[in-house]
Amino acid sequence: MRNPPNRPRVVIVGAGFGGLAVAKRLAGRDVDVTLVDRRNHHVFQPLLYQVATAALSPADIAGPIRSIFSGAWNVRVVLDEVCGVDAARNAVELSSGAELRYDWLVLATGARHSYFGRDDWAAYAPGLKSIEDALAIRRKVLLALERAETESNAKRRQAQLTFVVIGGGPTGVEMAGAIAELARRSVSQDFRSITPRCSRVILVEAGSRLLPSFPEELSVKAEQSLRQLGVELRLGRPVEDIGDGHVYLDRKLVFASTVIWAAGVQASPAAEWLHADRDGNGRVIIGADLRVPGHPNILAIGDTARTIDINGRPAPAVAPAAKQQGRYAADFILGRARRPFRYRDFGNFATIGRNKAIIVMGSFKLSGFLAWLIWSAAHIWFLIGFRSRLSVTIAWLWNYLTFQRSARLITGGISFPTPKPLRPRSLERKSA
Amino acid sequence: MRNPPNRPRVVIVGAGFGGLAVAKRLAGRDVDVTLVDRRNHHVFQPLLYQVATAALSPADIAGPIRSIFSGAWNVRVVLDEVCGVDAARNAVELSSGAELRYDWLVLATGARHSYFGRDDWAAYAPGLKSIEDALAIRRKVLLALERAETESNAKRRQAQLTFVVIGGGPTGVEMAGAIAELARRSVSQDFRSITPRCSRVILVEAGSRLLPSFPEELSVKAEQSLRQLGVELRLGRPVEDIGDGHVYLDRKLVFASTVIWAAGVQASPAAEWLHADRDGNGRVIIGADLRVPGHPNILAIGDTARTIDINGRPAPAVAPAAKQQGRYAADFILGRARRPFRYRDFGNFATIGRNKAIIVMGSFKLSGFLAWLIWSAAHIWFLIGFRSRLSVTIAWLWNYLTFQRSARLITGGISFPTPKPLRPRSLERKSA
Repeated sequence: MRNPPNRPRVVIVGAGFGGLAVAKRLAGRDVDVTLVDRRNHHVFQPLLYQVATAALSPADIAGPIRSIFSGAWNVRVVLDEVCGVDAARNAVELSSGAELRYDWLVLATGARHSYFGRDDWAAYAPGLKSIEDALAIRRKVLLALERAETESNAKRRQAQLTFVVIGGGPTGVEMAGAIAELARRSVSQDFRSITPRCSRVILVEAGSRLLPSFPEELSVKAEQSLRQLGVELRLGRPVEDIGDGHVYLDRKLVFASTVIWAAGVQASPAAEWLHADRDGNGRVIIGADLRVPGHPNILAIGDTARTIDINGRPAPAVAPAAKQQGRYAADFILGRARRPFRYRDFGNFATIGRNKAIIVMGSFKLSGFLAWLIWSAAHIWFLIGFRSRLSVTIAWLWNYLTFQRSARLITGGISFPTPKPLRPRSLERKSA
Repeated sequence: MRNPPNRPRVVIVGAGFGGLAVAKRLAGRDVDVTLVDRRNHHVFQPLLYQVATAALSPADIAGPIRSIFSGAWNVRVVLDEVCGVDAARNAVELSSGAELRYDWLVLATGARHSYFGRDDWAAYAPGLKSIEDALAIRRKVLLALERAETESNAKRRQAQLTFVVIGGGPTGVEMAGAIAELARRSVSQDFRSITPRCSRVILVEAGSRLLPSFPEELSVKAEQSLRQLGVELRLGRPVEDIGDGHVYLDRKLVFASTVIWAAGVQASPAAEWLHADRDGNGRVIIGADLRVPGHPNILAIGDTARTIDINGRPAPAVAPAAKQQGRYAADFILGRARRPFRYRDFGNFATIGRNKAIIVMGSFKLSGFLAWLIWSAAHIWFLIGFRSRLSVTIAWLWNYLTFQRSARLITGGISFPTPKPLRPRSLERKSA
């Protein structure tokens, strides 16, 4: 109803870092923007692992997309799921049955987990992409501690207290460090039967070192910090199999009630919607101006796109790259982008446990407590909205000073099963 | 393992206000205490409606039971569900298959919803007792607003924007006021198609006035305040039928996508476990020393018990009564209770919307903004733990100053159904 004939209609699919950046830059401009997401909230993904480990509440790191654009009258937010794009008709098809017509389309649909062809592992080793994922992992970890407390069989108790994290990138390193602190330190006062020494946290990485996107000396620092926290590192071999309550590592069976997947991602099906060329991870291969070849009015950004910038390197799958691409896409639509997209690398962070981090910015490298302080300040700064910043700052200070985890709630109903046998039911393997 | 022969074993079932009060008073005493709950967290129920209306996060009003007793080495917390009591053997049976032997047993299992024999209504009109309930209602209310935003059919949009709260006690009054503010004010900036005037909030009470446990003049004040917030009051007639997306009020069909049940409660099955006498609401009828007749070592407290105190009045089903009974039960077990239990009434509160409340303390009555300030201070004070108090204070100040709701997250996955016809499928009625 509010679409004067001359205003171009821009549809943005996905309200992650990329999609938000497009809509923010187009707010107040002479275009009609529709931002579609299948969730009502934007998630600050870099801190999702803190929700999964009970340090923060969902509302601390997520906020309604509508609120971000409440003052931007040319931005309309629609809660719906995109199920296809009819590029010939310039229309986006929604699961509710409605469709959105566009003059410009920006695809910012992000990525999901990839189990390297073993989708059956998804049931046993959840990944961490959404608030729901984080709450499911939080529930799993906290329930394992509770069950260990009442378990009288020593082997079963050890299985409850064994946590396996698969994937040695930033998410895996952060999860392993945070679980080690939760299981070995934060809860030590609260339990009567289990002690911090009972817990075992194993981090599995197929490559030869952790954090391969960082310089080798920082990988070494991260490995040292994790070992100090009591994390066992298994480098150089991938996980061989995952089942209900167990994994195979190095041809050995390890019983573990909690297994977390942080190993692989796969782009969302945006490329399939367009029948466009894609790379091995399903990402749309796009031009230097972020447009999809053959579709002059469709741009793809962030984790769903494979950019080659003018330096010949693809932009990494990190939030700053998605944001820069989002701003570029908006400028392109407004006719203000004069040069090809170029990713500017302002540095890379990862945090390990309660007071250590590693930072690399060009040739500058830093690790330890000071790096952690910078990491904390940067993450609080980039959180959306003043309330979240304040709330996260207080929660962190509180957790830091007291070793408490404030959000240790098991929600979603609890079943109290009779104890299962320890032997995995199916030892046969579906693939070599 | 830590049970010297002379220390009596006390088992407390339920970690609500009553059960917590027993365990707190027994902490550090010469008894072995086991506190069983089927959830890992204590919930501050009086603020549950604020989670349901997106003003607070679950972790703001709930905390792990273990943390409350981390320093009390004679208190063991067990996450399990009680499925029966074998009073002859002094044993509590748990769903996990284990059992707990006791010398003293305290039943503090609380109450659940009662649909007055119409259990089929539960699917359409959820109640508010747990964090899960609150999140389900939050999801329902927020999704209704989202669906209204994209709905083009005027009648269907009106159905999405109609909220019916059934029951005019404190919970119903607080829910109706909070929904009216959320739907009519807090979100007004964020939507493009719906305006605050579109929403309709209906509060249904079978009795002739709201808040029957308060003096009549305060009921009148509450009714005025709710009308100012735009709430429609339907007094003097019960709801006639509830179905999927509709209710029958006063023989008229009202389409409403959100119906909330705040009308009846029913005690948990503690009385059934003991085959004890119970009242019409399923509460165990207990003696003046809170013991269950015929079971000299079993006490029942809080909403699951019907106390008659020495004044001949039953204690009301409110948190202060449960706490007082819990402290009395602990004293009784320790051999320190010399007189029968007597409920001391320190007053009664209810809040209406964003800045009004009513208070009665003996002959003292207060309503309006000052009452709301006292209500806020009292609720923050009684919240468990410093972190929650601080966090709730900040969230409230923030909500108050900005009209924002910080926890407006729809979690749990969203389906995008094709629109349903407005006519209810079954118009036949199962009861007169």
